[in-house]
Amino acid sequence: MRENDEGQAEKRVRASFAKQGLMTTLGATIVDIAPGRVEIALEPAPAISQQHGFVHAGALSAIADSAAGYAALSLMHPGQGVLTTEFKINFLEPAAGNRIRAIGTVMKAGRTLTFAQAEVFAEADGRERLIAYFTATMMAVEGRAGIDD
Amino acid sequence: MRENDEGQAEKRVRASFAKQGLMTTLGATIVDIAPGRVEIALEPAPAISQQHGFVHAGALSAIADSAAGYAALSLMHPGQGVLTTEFKINFLEPAAGNRIRAIGTVMKAGRTLTFAQAEVFAEADGRERLIAYFTATMMAVEGRAGIDD
Amino acid sequence: MRENDEGQAEKRVRASFAKQGLMTTLGATIVDIAPGRVEIALEPAPAISQQHGFVHAGALSAIADSAAGYAALSLMHPGQGVLTTEFKINFLEPAAGNRIRAIGTVMKAGRTLTFAQAEVFAEADGRERLIAYFTATMMAVEGRAGIDD
Amino acid sequence: MRENDEGQAEKRVRASFAKQGLMTTLGATIVDIAPGRVEIALEPAPAISQQHGFVHAGALSAIADSAAGYAALSLMHPGQGVLTTEFKINFLEPAAGNRIRAIGTVMKAGRTLTFAQAEVFAEADGRERLIAYFTATMMAVEGRAGIDD
Repeated sequence: MRENDEGQAEKRVRASFAKQGLMTTLGATIVDIAPGRVEIALEPAPAISQQHGFVHAGALSAIADSAAGYAALSLMHPGQGVLTTEFKINFLEPAAGNRIRAIGTVMKAGRTLTFAQAEVFAEADGRERLIAYFTATMMAVEGRAGIDD
Repeated sequence: MRENDEGQAEKRVRASFAKQGLMTTLGATIVDIAPGRVEIALEPAPAISQQHGFVHAGALSAIADSAAGYAALSLMHPGQGVLTTEFKINFLEPAAGNRIRAIGTVMKAGRTLTFAQAEVFAEADGRERLIAYFTATMMAVEGRAGIDD
Repeated sequence: MRENDEGQAEKRVRASFAKQGLMTTLGATIVDIAPGRVEIALEPAPAISQQHGFVHAGALSAIADSAAGYAALSLMHPGQGVLTTEFKINFLEPAAGNRIRAIGTVMKAGRTLTFAQAEVFAEADGRERLIAYFTATMMAVEGRAGIDD
Repeated sequence: MRENDEGQAEKRVRASFAKQGLMTTLGATIVDIAPGRVEIALEPAPAISQQHGFVHAGALSAIADSAAGYAALSLMHPGQGVLTTEFKINFLEPAAGNRIRAIGTVMKAGRTLTFAQAEVFAEADGRERLIAYFTATMMAVEGRAGIDD
């Protein structure tokens, strides 16, 4: 991928991310975009908690899904949009700390389906731990009105 | 389960749900609680959308997870708390319409692990369609401070 | 689906099943075929066991995958073939008894992707129990040589 | 882990693997055992095929499950046995070639639950490709007769 394409991919992902109302609602932000790899951060807060005060599994899933989905989109042709077909997420530790990061990575980009993973880390006491692991099938959608990102 | 126990389970689930900051943030509400079955509703809105205007996969996952988790909790002993070990969700149709419902059901309650599913429906044009299907392993946690619901 | 189509679907599934060397190796047999629903049986035996004498998770997965995959194929157009994109299986009880049955059912048949589930039961002491639950994304493949079933 | 423990873990895994009738039936063999990592190989053959001549998804799942399960067992206390709670597997390419390898790795070993992954590779034309990706929750079982490996 040429530098120019990288710039295009980044612009496309940032523009699409800005349209995801849920990311704003959760307070999630894009940390980094590279072809096939997108990183999103989230700050633990009562507004995104479950009943014990940890970050809710749904909030972790949301940023993992956006990170993996945008990693997939960053490699798709212009005019294609990305939809999540399915994902699974395993929770390894309760989500607490100062900062949560989800790093989405494409493992196999096919013509229609892309397989991507996301690792979710929590930083606490100056140390980062893997707290959740996510795998997903993303689908490239073409020629459907309103779905080109 | 006697009527009295049902009342207890309902009170316990409602009290715990009220502590889930994310449910309030998403605008999710409990519709119904029965032993081993919990229903949660969500209203589509820009604040919980993905980039094409559909409800974000993470928001669907959040209510499916809470519905299935509370279905599991409704059958657990007093003093036990519920944590999600893992879940998978398949998305069958884009999430749009007037109202989304997630119905969580326990399929097997074990001593430590409970297997639960959730069906997610969207109502549009007076008709309801299955839009996502969720399965999860829920864990009963005992004797850990702050985790008794 | 007319009776004639049903007959066609059944013939197609039976012919394809006969080509699955693994089903013969495991001793699996088709019990029933209907449009969107296929049932496969397996007899527990040391040749398909894991280390504790239960039926191996891989053998249960194999019949669940074939049952769900053929349920999907039974609804596909002539000329299309079926490939498994992904599946998840939860194991609810150790697999033992006289007979194992996997019942695959289509939950949503799309143009390219079909979502199917399979329930796996074990019969022991004249009683049948749900021992595993499986969900999968099946893909319709067209125009690829050798893949039309 | 001391060298001695490594030797113990290897002996334990080899002895348990030898009891898995299904591995013998499929023609699978252990390639390598290290603490938290186990590699199993399989040779494509008609006896383990699906209808198009590829290795059946169930056979791939079986070796991935054994590789990940034994990676988990290799870190468990003597007297504990391993059971698979759930797994998900994504299929990235049809399984063909001269040799299939599943490499199971522990990602988080907890007291009761272990999270493990397995990567499945196929070697063809002197080149190895990732063809499937597997994640699983493994459970340590204690004090149940006949389940100590």
